[in-house]
Amino acid sequence: MKITPFRGLLSYREALERLLRAARPVEEMEEVPLLEALGRVLGEEVVSSMDVPPFDRAAMDGYAVRSEETFSAGTFSPVLLKVVGEVYAGEVPERGIGRGEAMRVATGAPLPEGSDGVVPAEDTEEEGEVVRIYTPIPPYRNVTRRGSDIKEGEVALSSGEVLTPSRVGALAALGLSKVKVRRRVLVSVIPTGEEIVPPGEKLEGGRIYDINSYTLGTLVKECGGEVKVWGIVGDRREELEKALQEAIEESDVVVFSGGSSVGERDLLEEVFGSVGEILFHGVQIKPGKPLLAAKSGDKILLGIPGYPASALTSSYLFLKPLILKMGGYPLQEERSVMARMSRRVTSNLGRHQFLTVRLERDEGGYLAHPVFKESGTITSLSRADGYVEIPENVDLVERGEEVQVKLF
Amino acid sequence: MKITPFRGLLSYREALERLLRAARPVEEMEEVPLLEALGRVLGEEVVSSMDVPPFDRAAMDGYAVRSEETFSAGTFSPVLLKVVGEVYAGEVPERGIGRGEAMRVATGAPLPEGSDGVVPAEDTEEEGEVVRIYTPIPPYRNVTRRGSDIKEGEVALSSGEVLTPSRVGALAALGLSKVKVRRRVLVSVIPTGEEIVPPGEKLEGGRIYDINSYTLGTLVKECGGEVKVWGIVGDRREELEKALQEAIEESDVVVFSGGSSVGERDLLEEVFGSVGEILFHGVQIKPGKPLLAAKSGDKILLGIPGYPASALTSSYLFLKPLILKMGGYPLQEERSVMARMSRRVTSNLGRHQFLTVRLERDEGGYLAHPVFKESGTITSLSRADGYVEIPENVDLVERGEEVQVKLF
Repeated sequence: MKITPFRGLLSYREALERLLRAARPVEEMEEVPLLEALGRVLGEEVVSSMDVPPFDRAAMDGYAVRSEETFSAGTFSPVLLKVVGEVYAGEVPERGIGRGEAMRVATGAPLPEGSDGVVPAEDTEEEGEVVRIYTPIPPYRNVTRRGSDIKEGEVALSSGEVLTPSRVGALAALGLSKVKVRRRVLVSVIPTGEEIVPPGEKLEGGRIYDINSYTLGTLVKECGGEVKVWGIVGDRREELEKALQEAIEESDVVVFSGGSSVGERDLLEEVFGSVGEILFHGVQIKPGKPLLAAKSGDKILLGIPGYPASALTSSYLFLKPLILKMGGYPLQEERSVMARMSRRVTSNLGRHQFLTVRLERDEGGYLAHPVFKESGTITSLSRADGYVEIPENVDLVERGEEVQVKLF
Repeated sequence: MKITPFRGLLSYREALERLLRAARPVEEMEEVPLLEALGRVLGEEVVSSMDVPPFDRAAMDGYAVRSEETFSAGTFSPVLLKVVGEVYAGEVPERGIGRGEAMRVATGAPLPEGSDGVVPAEDTEEEGEVVRIYTPIPPYRNVTRRGSDIKEGEVALSSGEVLTPSRVGALAALGLSKVKVRRRVLVSVIPTGEEIVPPGEKLEGGRIYDINSYTLGTLVKECGGEVKVWGIVGDRREELEKALQEAIEESDVVVFSGGSSVGERDLLEEVFGSVGEILFHGVQIKPGKPLLAAKSGDKILLGIPGYPASALTSSYLFLKPLILKMGGYPLQEERSVMARMSRRVTSNLGRHQFLTVRLERDEGGYLAHPVFKESGTITSLSRADGYVEIPENVDLVERGEEVQVKLF
């Protein structure tokens, strides 16, 4: 056990920027069926190969007419037209209409040749083969024009858009049954440490359960990534090297979680350094200070502290934006709400603190209760709704002070 | 084609309340592995069967001591203790410590019997078998107490909580490898209409592609439900009845999308009425007015208008809260942002309008651009970020007026 101080600690912003600058979005694409496309990132520009709708169609039940023939219609002076047929949605009109003629049309039906408007059924009266039109309509009233939704050749969706239900609908409207999306970012999570045991197994003296594989694994999924959780690896150099070599083959990002002691962190730095370039080791934040990041070709390697609360908090701060960027997702602002602190909180000057809080509604809006117990605890975090950032140059937040809570 | 007016239209709030009152959360549970549990609803109260951590452990690298023996220590008057061994994380101390003794401990290691604190390595100096302690520590300094995270018998998570990464972590901390969650709400989506064709097939005269199966199908998934999209069903009574009977067998919610004409809507009302009780037919909203809802035992039946934009908007307004409630999810407030309208918008008095808008950042915050073209269009909606509600008693929103945009 040897103690070495952290060398040249970066601020949170500097460290994050350095990490994201090293990360490249994955370039490979894959095709998925529309119903599986929710939340994926569109991998190509989608240009419409057709007009949508593909024909002028009735927007109401009524009568297709030549609009100019209705101009003189009024409540007491109906225009009389001859009904020459009817057409339902999904059918093709059997004929067009000529002067003095009308055709019964259902909502969604294609307009017959020669017509340019639909008089709603409630403004008419049919008797025998004749319909009385009581209201004039301007051209194309109650008609959905061919191509009014999307025109042939128009860009319907741009590459990089995240597929929501309505965007999936736009793809369906164009007749596409599959869509090309960016493949998911592949993340390996490797739990390390002699003391951890997978949940479900029996705990023996001195051991604790592996928590980080599950918090980090689900966080990866929440960011649209695909996760592989590896078996627990010991703290010996050869074991770490072997695990890294295997994981790097099949992943875009390799995360080691563990290594609570300075010795283990230094060992991981050596292992990372042997296959790539260290981006930083140590960040001026609390919790999560001993974070380690490296780069090997296009792969990103992270060493995340072993303490569960530190591990998860630093993953929200670094791993989440990393996966979003590599997955081609827009780096959206965090969702946040304003709240008042429920009690006075102190922080260390020179250290950017992330204080996890639970929100409670009260008359004036939200109250933020600090829930952080210590880095080793996880239940406290499981009760948190988000976190408050306390910058380096602030050492005190007063009770009742307004703070911005970034939501998990 | 027969025209019947909508009878007794409800307001949006009344209709939604009537629908949700009829809906019961599904009661069946299923067990899933922790990594698959993200976003699921916990189906049981989880009581800890153990203390976490299960022993007092070192929170730093250093020396486990009897704290009272360090009280007299100072920079110029170190306390000398005999080093009687060392213990790493995952190990069990070989022995306890007695008076005048200390043991080297690594972060995470169980404290040896007899010790009640850890002096950080940097406040010590080891030489031969003796360690010099330069700083006094109070009892339990740098120790994570047994049960400090969760105590045996304590409620760690409550039934109904939605599983986030940190809550999954709390389950792992207790040694659980699987968790009991509420099963997903099963939703059947049945596209109807003679005019629609599945994407991927060839369009023939008068036909358009099925959009609603995909917008509604992905929305169901977004709400944590499981969707089955059925084959397209024609508008004939026997076909609708047969499809309903089959779908009702295997789903909690059956959604028919289509039926743009009044005649088809009435037919669906008859079909729903033959197996259950009509909750409402027609809501005073725009778009989405012809919405139909019924209840048959514990099953909910919905008839959603065929026009793609109406179908999706009314699904956000009714289907989404329905699935969330039946899935046991808390009915959270919609996420929203404040924005200024980019132009003047008129609305019909007496009709609650949902105006889809695209958001644009500008110096003063957000600008909301209306994107709605008409009920039949889907591309407009695919560019929308959310919607603005214009209540029944408002007929005009001025350019620059501040509005609340609820986000999709």
